[in-house]
Amino acid sequence: MIENHNLHIYNTLSGEKEKFESLNPPMVGMYVCGPTVYSDVHIGNLRTFMSFDLVFRYLKHLGYKVRYVRNITDVGHLESNADTGEDKISKKARLEQLEPMEIVHRYTHDFHQVLESFNNLPPSIEPTATGHLIEQIEITKTLIEKGLAYESEGSVYFDVTKYNQEHNYGELSKRNIEDLMANSRTLDGQDEKRNPQDFALWKKASAEHIMRWPSPWSEGFPGWHLECTVMSTKYLGEQFDIHGGGMDLKFPHHECEIAQAKGAFDQAPVKYWMHANMLTLNGQKMSKSTGNTILPKELFSGDNHFFEKAFHPMVVRFFMLQAHYRSVLDLSNEAMLAAEKGFNRLMLAGKSIENLPISENTSFDLHQWVKLCHEKMDDDFNSPMLIAQLFDMVKYINAILDGSETINQHDHIILKMRWDEFVHQILGLYAVENISGNKALDGAMQLLIEQRDKARANKDWATSDEIRDRLAQYGITLKDGKEGTGYSVE
Amino acid sequence: MIENHNLHIYNTLSGEKEKFESLNPPMVGMYVCGPTVYSDVHIGNLRTFMSFDLVFRYLKHLGYKVRYVRNITDVGHLESNADTGEDKISKKARLEQLEPMEIVHRYTHDFHQVLESFNNLPPSIEPTATGHLIEQIEITKTLIEKGLAYESEGSVYFDVTKYNQEHNYGELSKRNIEDLMANSRTLDGQDEKRNPQDFALWKKASAEHIMRWPSPWSEGFPGWHLECTVMSTKYLGEQFDIHGGGMDLKFPHHECEIAQAKGAFDQAPVKYWMHANMLTLNGQKMSKSTGNTILPKELFSGDNHFFEKAFHPMVVRFFMLQAHYRSVLDLSNEAMLAAEKGFNRLMLAGKSIENLPISENTSFDLHQWVKLCHEKMDDDFNSPMLIAQLFDMVKYINAILDGSETINQHDHIILKMRWDEFVHQILGLYAVENISGNKALDGAMQLLIEQRDKARANKDWATSDEIRDRLAQYGITLKDGKEGTGYSVE
Repeated sequence: MIENHNLHIYNTLSGEKEKFESLNPPMVGMYVCGPTVYSDVHIGNLRTFMSFDLVFRYLKHLGYKVRYVRNITDVGHLESNADTGEDKISKKARLEQLEPMEIVHRYTHDFHQVLESFNNLPPSIEPTATGHLIEQIEITKTLIEKGLAYESEGSVYFDVTKYNQEHNYGELSKRNIEDLMANSRTLDGQDEKRNPQDFALWKKASAEHIMRWPSPWSEGFPGWHLECTVMSTKYLGEQFDIHGGGMDLKFPHHECEIAQAKGAFDQAPVKYWMHANMLTLNGQKMSKSTGNTILPKELFSGDNHFFEKAFHPMVVRFFMLQAHYRSVLDLSNEAMLAAEKGFNRLMLAGKSIENLPISENTSFDLHQWVKLCHEKMDDDFNSPMLIAQLFDMVKYINAILDGSETINQHDHIILKMRWDEFVHQILGLYAVENISGNKALDGAMQLLIEQRDKARANKDWATSDEIRDRLAQYGITLKDGKEGTGYSVE
Repeated sequence: MIENHNLHIYNTLSGEKEKFESLNPPMVGMYVCGPTVYSDVHIGNLRTFMSFDLVFRYLKHLGYKVRYVRNITDVGHLESNADTGEDKISKKARLEQLEPMEIVHRYTHDFHQVLESFNNLPPSIEPTATGHLIEQIEITKTLIEKGLAYESEGSVYFDVTKYNQEHNYGELSKRNIEDLMANSRTLDGQDEKRNPQDFALWKKASAEHIMRWPSPWSEGFPGWHLECTVMSTKYLGEQFDIHGGGMDLKFPHHECEIAQAKGAFDQAPVKYWMHANMLTLNGQKMSKSTGNTILPKELFSGDNHFFEKAFHPMVVRFFMLQAHYRSVLDLSNEAMLAAEKGFNRLMLAGKSIENLPISENTSFDLHQWVKLCHEKMDDDFNSPMLIAQLFDMVKYINAILDGSETINQHDHIILKMRWDEFVHQILGLYAVENISGNKALDGAMQLLIEQRDKARANKDWATSDEIRDRLAQYGITLKDGKEGTGYSVE
């Protein structure tokens, strides 16, 4: 199965779509920069993690044995890219008067809850920065020995100028280091650095910084960029297939990862660099300071000022999958309402597949449809195009139901399997009515719908409307369709 | 509120119930030994974690600010207490041909899922052994400097004989070290030790042991006992209030924790030692080798040979709470069926509280009941006695419904609050029908019950029975009561 695919991935490094060939088939090693657990997971990050959940699922579908490593940054992520400002977790701990690890645990737990409600698969390994301090210290020593890092006032910095003599700092983000250096202002705390572009591998802890460990240079903590280089290469090898993350991490974070790895291991760490694009809200960049921001749980519960109702996580997931991961995606009330309609249409059609009437022949080319579905996903994980293909099949499903198209026994089985593969396993969507406890609801609704049908057959519109209106009060919407009446729950 | 309680805790160290006085009110520091994540969480461990979840919940109810630290052992737990045999995680990784951290992550994830379905609150901090290697190395150095540990062949062992000159190794488990030494066989790999009772603080890694880190003595990994001493004292201080765990950990694990802490910090680490008792299955000890074993998910799903049906996690939690945490608890089909009946009776009564008829006076002593509830929990977290109190109230609730007892407005509010506190917040139980999605079910059922009531008022027994029977087909049982008709879902 693996040799048969035609998967092409857009590689930020080359700026082109490249045919995917894993370094050690049938294995694939993928690393994605995870959250810094100092606050509720951001909805833009949720989009990024979902994008790589899609990648993970599709690679597994293709038959690869994928080791997906996604880290937890539980120390060392400073507020400023210039290595100044407070550690985000430290700051939150100080403000809430809690031990930093309590902050870490609370937001790690929240992160897991949100991703699970979003039906993301757990990664293979979820290493923490604090769980790899010794390795980070060892790599820092290596870089110092190789003349690519230096100690200054107890901190250790990576020497970008030195690195750039042999390599190309800026190769990923296509920046020119001379331009970078010319444009850098001299900021506070930059005196320790030989060059403003240099970045911390190890930071000496200030007096208030609770999280600190001994090292050859000072009591301190690791630099954020180094954490990812260490954790990715430890579990995936010094060279691995895919590195993913949000587009905002391209520079300096991912650029630094390349530099650290090339410096320490003398080879490029990553074959395919994948970046997911941003999420905007009502056409504007999301920002806490402007108030143009929303938490995933606020979107799911409806407890916000931007949307007229609550939206189930599956609807939000569907909405996100309708855009290509490399496109900017705008979140708005209208867009979500439309997505919800689309999602319900898709799920309803999926439920109908089980009971399609079987004929002698199939009147359309199912196999061509399956081939097209794969082609769309092979084209850099083009989920919106896959979804369009699924809606094509919705038309066929309805046509089979009304008799204008037919399907035979064999193709019926194929269609069930493929629908399940594409909708549930690859896109990670499931019908909202299928949450546990709803077998009972299906049963009770069946009775009520039968009663309403009986009333309508007797032209007793008052009873029919009363049942509909009473159910609406409980958040249950009846949907009259060609095949009978279904329902959805708010 | 804190000063008003009369909580007494059974302290393994003294063998007596002691009045609980926290070291730094209003704070309480509690550490519980967590799982070694090399396999599915064991149902006996589930009982232990639930016992301390109860303790956590009750201490919070009393008004304490509790920092609950429960670790994850992700390295260093060897098969044999004599520090021989394989690391449990290493072994599983080798058998499944996976990287050890993949094993760790899979079973950490499973552990969290099971505990959440059991409605355990997450702890404040959940540190991992691999996240505290530097601290473990530092403490080991300290113990060597103090002459309480020695290096041998790259491993470091705690010198129990030396320790016992100034202290009492065996104070927790009431064992005599001379007897222990006389009775120890000389096992393989004990040559490195001066005394068979000595235990590893750091182990040199054998060639196949993937998990290894550099240290002053060898490439290796920490000893399991040391991990808990380090993680508990780091986040709770060198002396903290409560240390919990299963009874099987008393010796040597907890005994070693005391020795390490007294050795390193010159003071007893823990004020109150709490131990939860074992779970048996059909009267026998649980054991994989005899086949007398069951996984939590097998009990929840009914997919096993011991029980005639599936049991909801809340029913299992209720069953466990009906025994005191220090008693042996036997799991059997009959016991679970009885627990399910009791749980349903309790939940049904709880639901009725909302609609109790209000009178001028309360005909019984509600405040005495509240006082008794607290007294039971104050008596070393006596949950079975609290549950008996709750069933006393069930009698009053039914009596109020049939008019033989009365309750006034004010006490109705009190009853609602207290019931919620004791049942939901302290015992951590919730009614199974209240899982999300059932607002809709409640609504649909309301309509159907109204229709059935109308039919019965018109003596249309056929319609009334038909509705009842059809609902039964969907697993919904109608319960005709004095206050109207309710329902339950299988």
